[in-house]
Formats: sequence, C-alpha cells, structure tokens
Amino acid sequence: MATVIDGKAVAQTIRSEIADEVRLLSQKYGKVPGLAVVIVGNRKDSQSYVGMKRKACAELGIKSFDIDLPEQVSQAEVINQVHDLNANPDVHGILVQLPLPKHINEEKVLTEISIEKDVDGFHPLNIGKLAMKGRDPLFLPCTPKACIELLQRSGVSIKGKKAVVVGRSNIVGLPASLLLLKADATVTIVHSHTSQPESIIREADIVIAAAGQPMMIKGNWIKPGAAVIDVGTNAVDDPTKKSGYRLVGDVDFQEASKVAGWITPVPGGVGPMTVTMLLKNTLDGAKRDIEQNN
Amino acid sequence: MATVIDGKAVAQTIRSEIADEVRLLSQKYGKVPGLAVVIVGNRKDSQSYVGMKRKACAELGIKSFDIDLPEQVSQAEVINQVHDLNANPDVHGILVQLPLPKHINEEKVLTEISIEKDVDGFHPLNIGKLAMKGRDPLFLPCTPKACIELLQRSGVSIKGKKAVVVGRSNIVGLPASLLLLKADATVTIVHSHTSQPESIIREADIVIAAAGQPMMIKGNWIKPGAAVIDVGTNAVDDPTKKSGYRLVGDVDFQEASKVAGWITPVPGGVGPMTVTMLLKNTLDGAKRDIEQNN
Repeated sequence: MATVIDGKAVAQTIRSEIADEVRLLSQKYGKVPGLAVVIVGNRKDSQSYVGMKRKACAELGIKSFDIDLPEQVSQAEVINQVHDLNANPDVHGILVQLPLPKHINEEKVLTEISIEKDVDGFHPLNIGKLAMKGRDPLFLPCTPKACIELLQRSGVSIKGKKAVVVGRSNIVGLPASLLLLKADATVTIVHSHTSQPESIIREADIVIAAAGQPMMIKGNWIKPGAAVIDVGTNAVDDPTKKSGYRLVGDVDFQEASKVAGWITPVPGGVGPMTVTMLLKNTLDGAKRDIEQNN
Repeated sequence: MATVIDGKAVAQTIRSEIADEVRLLSQKYGKVPGLAVVIVGNRKDSQSYVGMKRKACAELGIKSFDIDLPEQVSQAEVINQVHDLNANPDVHGILVQLPLPKHINEEKVLTEISIEKDVDGFHPLNIGKLAMKGRDPLFLPCTPKACIELLQRSGVSIKGKKAVVVGRSNIVGLPASLLLLKADATVTIVHSHTSQPESIIREADIVIAAAGQPMMIKGNWIKPGAAVIDVGTNAVDDPTKKSGYRLVGDVDFQEASKVAGWITPVPGGVGPMTVTMLLKNTLDGAKRDIEQNN
C-alpha cells in the first residue's frame, strides 16, 4: 500500500514556517508582507477561493489588500487598479482571480502586473526563465511548486527519475514539467493528442496528473512503487452526499493506492498546498523587497 | 534505406522565397530588411560564422550592419552599441555573436536587445511565450525552427507522434522540445542524467539529436521508419583529411540511415538551414515593422 501524502499536514508545517518568518520580518523591519487579491464580479467559486486566500493571510500575519470590483467594471479600470497596486510599497504580491468576465482580456490585465509582484508566476518572462537553464524566475507558479514540495518533503528523489506529466496547461502541466526538468528528471509530457498514454505512464517513477479528467488514470497504469501527485479536482455526481456531488482526482485513488509508493489524496493533497505556496511567494517577494530597501 | 533530407537544397528553396519577399518589400515601400551582426574579438570560428551570415544577407538583398568590436571593449560599450541598434529604424534584427569575451556578461548584453529585434529568439520573454499555450513569440530560435521546417518540408507529420529530444540547451534542445509540444507531439527530453537513453529513443517516431556527443546515437537505437534530425556538429580526428579532422553528428549516420525513415546528414543537414532561419526571422521582423509604419 502506498504512503498517502498528507497535503494538509505538509501545508500546516510550511504555514507555521511562514508565520515565523513574518514575525521575524516584523520585528526586524517593522514591516509585514502584503498580498493584494483582486476579484471581479460575483462568481461563487471565485469568491470562495478568494475568501480562503484572505483568511490564510490573516492567520499568518500577512496583510491582505482586498480589491472587489463589480462585474461591469471596465478593463481600463482593472488595469488602473493593478497599476496602483504596482506602485504601493506595502503590496508585495498581486493576484487577480481568474476567470475575469468575458469583456476583459485576461492576458492584457495579467501582463500589467509588475514582475516583482507576480506571485502567481504566470508572466511569460517568469515562465521563460523557468524554462531556461541558468536562469531563475522570481516566482514559481503555485501549483507546480506545490507538487515539487510534496515530492521533496516526502523524500522522493527526482534527479535521474522518469517523470510523466499528464496535461500541459499554462498553470500546471507545462510549468510542472519545466520544474521537473530543472530538477534533472527525464520528463515526458502526455496530453489529449497522445496515443496510448497508459503505456507511457506505466514507465514513470513520478506521475503528475493535471488533466482535469475524473479518475482517468487507472491503478494498472501505475508502475509499482511510483510517486503519484494528483492535481485534478473534479466534481462528480454522488446522490449519497447532501451536496449531490463529491470531489475526485484525475487518478483512481482506490486502485492506484494499492500499487503506488506514494500518492496524494483528493481532497487533502495538492489543494491545501497551493494557497500555501502563494503565501510563501508573497513572503519571498516581501523579503526581497524589504531586505533590498532597508 | 532512409530518405536523406538535403538541408542545403531546402535552405536554397527558402532563401529564394526570402529573396522574392525582399524584392516585393523594396518595390512596395522602398525599404529592405536590415540585420546587425555584432562580433567582439578575433575568434576564428565566430568570424567564420559571422562572415557566412553577412554573405548570406548580401545574396538575398538584406542590408547587413557590421559592428566589429575589439576583444578589450567594455561591457558598457557593447550595451551602448546594442542601444544604438535598437534605436536605428533601418535595423530589424540584432545578433550578438556568442561567445563573448569572459569579462562581458552575456545575459546582461542579450537582455538589452529590443524584443522586436531579437531575431535569435533567445530572450526569456520569447522563450516564455514559446512555452505557453495561446501565446506566440515574435521570433522562434533559429536552429529549433530549422528542425521543424525540415520535418514539415519532408512531409513528416508531428501531431500525435512520439518525439524525443536529446539535449536540453537553451539554444536548441529546450526550445525544440517546446516547439514539438506546440505541434502536438508527445515529447520526452533526454539529457545527461537520463538512464538508458537508448530505450527511450527506440520508442520515438521523431528524434532531434542535440547533445554535442559525436555519434552517440547508434543505428540500433533508432525505431525503424523514424525521422532523425541531427543537430550535432562535432569535429573528430581524421588523419586521412588534409585538415586532420572531419565533422560528424550526434548520430551514427552510416548505421542509422539503414533503419530510419528520414535522416539529416552532417554536414549538409541542419547547418545550412540555421542561417536561413535567421534571415527569415529578419525578413519577418522587417515586414512587421514596415507594414505597421506605412
């Protein structure tokens, strides 16, 4: 049976490390990290994510700047807000919650975020530096960074291992594969045009599943002893639940946990780690800024 | 026996396409593309590459701006030259021949090149856009672009194929793998920390070899019918030659050509294509600029 990686517990450990560092910064410089979270409109899921992020800031002593804009706000006004936050010395990280309403061009808004405050790590300049040997981005995208942290803190070595990333989104799959490559894994990227993905996944010592396909990866696709990080969070109908649904990953956990060496559950695996990595990025940005200017 | 891909002939075809477009631009707008090639010091190999590039410009009607700086030039002076070229409206592409002397930081110089004139495509912002879905870089790095052109013009389809890139340099391996991924191949990147590379290469429908290891890839590592693009250009001792050496690729051509479906020779494969892609990038930059401003 696989070791189940407890993302909640790892996240808790890292959060208390962050809280310690925030206290030190505050004692030494009288300053704390600041994270601005911009939300446009009333999407329930977005509001719930944003609420989680703001609550987590409060718990760790990070100052949260709440920018709540109405659904009808113009693109120019969103960009103005971003510029104000870029100029605000108390803000070390800026996060614009996606998706934005259809009349706003997300790419245009995101590229306005100052590279020094891009705690999501989505700026193409950050991704380019992540891809290139000998260059280091200011921030790593949160979910891929969470996957690597979970592997490292579980004692899984990456160097020289065969790693397969399932999915190639800009937010997870692509940067995760670049991070694994930087850590000297032999990396294969599997996606919707891959024929017989199971034959490739079966060779992998490390699998990062980020396809958004509920339980697509079966137990017999997993190499015995492999480390399986499941980024998928899919709602499937479940009449036995009060809500009418439950969350499952991209991996069939029941089956795969009998074969794998390590596996993350859904929920309770990567999820709690992602927000934690956002807080860590904000701390890192604040440290860079405060230590440079004091 | 494999079809030997004649890089010289493909390059010649593309060069005559470029010459036609240069003539059209000149007729319509009275302007021609301009490429600035900056060389520092007296390295023989660099001078020979630069000479080739300048000669190729002349043949196609592209105006060449020759900046020859002495070995002892300061970093600040090189950067000044780059700024002048950025500001010069007749220059559409800027190439700084590498390597630079040790007292000059290459990264610092290269990031000063205006992104609109970065015909080498090495700027991290360009690489980031190359990596990301839905984004397009202004320029593709020349050698990876050459590899894809050779595949496409030889009728090799990429979508859904298994591709293996051997080597992960910023200049060839990494961007080549990103380009193959964008073309919907299932991509694996093999490098110095990969164990048993032969077992991975044997699965590949497309192999791009860019490891800089003379004849490392043997005939029995190649899947029958695969397309093999050999980027390696390695000098090996050969007492039967007047020069005392000959050039070989990363692939054992003799053996591999008996197994592969397509293969590029060394020399005469990727080599002649790389300079051609630089000229194509310069043309594309000039078209963007001239058509926007007229």
